[in-house]
Amino acid sequence: MTIDIPATVARYLARVADAASGADIAALYADHGTLEDPVGSPALKGTGEIAAFYDALAGLERRTELLALRVSGNEAAFSFRVVTGSGAEQATIEPIDVMTFDEEGRITSMRAFWSPADVRIG
Amino acid sequence: MTIDIPATVARYLARVADAASGADIAALYADHGTLEDPVGSPALKGTGEIAAFYDALAGLERRTELLALRVSGNEAAFSFRVVTGSGAEQATIEPIDVMTFDEEGRITSMRAFWSPADVRIG
Repeated sequence: MTIDIPATVARYLARVADAASGADIAALYADHGTLEDPVGSPALKGTGEIAAFYDALAGLERRTELLALRVSGNEAAFSFRVVTGSGAEQATIEPIDVMTFDEEGRITSMRAFWSPADVRIG
Repeated sequence: MTIDIPATVARYLARVADAASGADIAALYADHGTLEDPVGSPALKGTGEIAAFYDALAGLERRTELLALRVSGNEAAFSFRVVTGSGAEQATIEPIDVMTFDEEGRITSMRAFWSPADVRIG
């Protein structure tokens, strides 16, 4: 089976922007997938923990834009912009995420590179 | 000891651009550092194999430019542009590299995300 990593990344960013339920985003992950956001924090494991992570972001107005995507083998690194809120409450961050995928194109791991210093307010 | 990851990344890109000897670039790595370029290829291990990898690039005119750098803990992901040669022979690529560092700021691993489809000629 040929997997379409760019399509999965696009779907991921769309669901993050839609403030989809955590379960909808976690459905893109393999059952035993892991999530480390930001890199250096304890990794979450399994779609239950992963869904809870995204549920904590629900209800916020959010836009996402892919800036650059590089695919190597069954892995990808991509930079993207996330804008949360609007006006003076607006926060912008451009993380670099690294994802690995299984043979069915599900995300087996996601690691997000960013630090609080990278957040721009207003 | 506080390590300065942005300074090490800047030094790395400068040495790659200078077409420094492979040993000069490998000196930024820890003794048992690893290099996987592109991701999915067999990893090279140790400064001897790493120096040989960079020596193979020596003698080519090359410019590098950091595009985005995200530091998380003792790891970093960064996108950068490498332009090799000039005129019709010019090749441009913008990989995303992920590096880990030891407590002395030496590179313990480098993984480069790119594929042949990302190379622009001319």
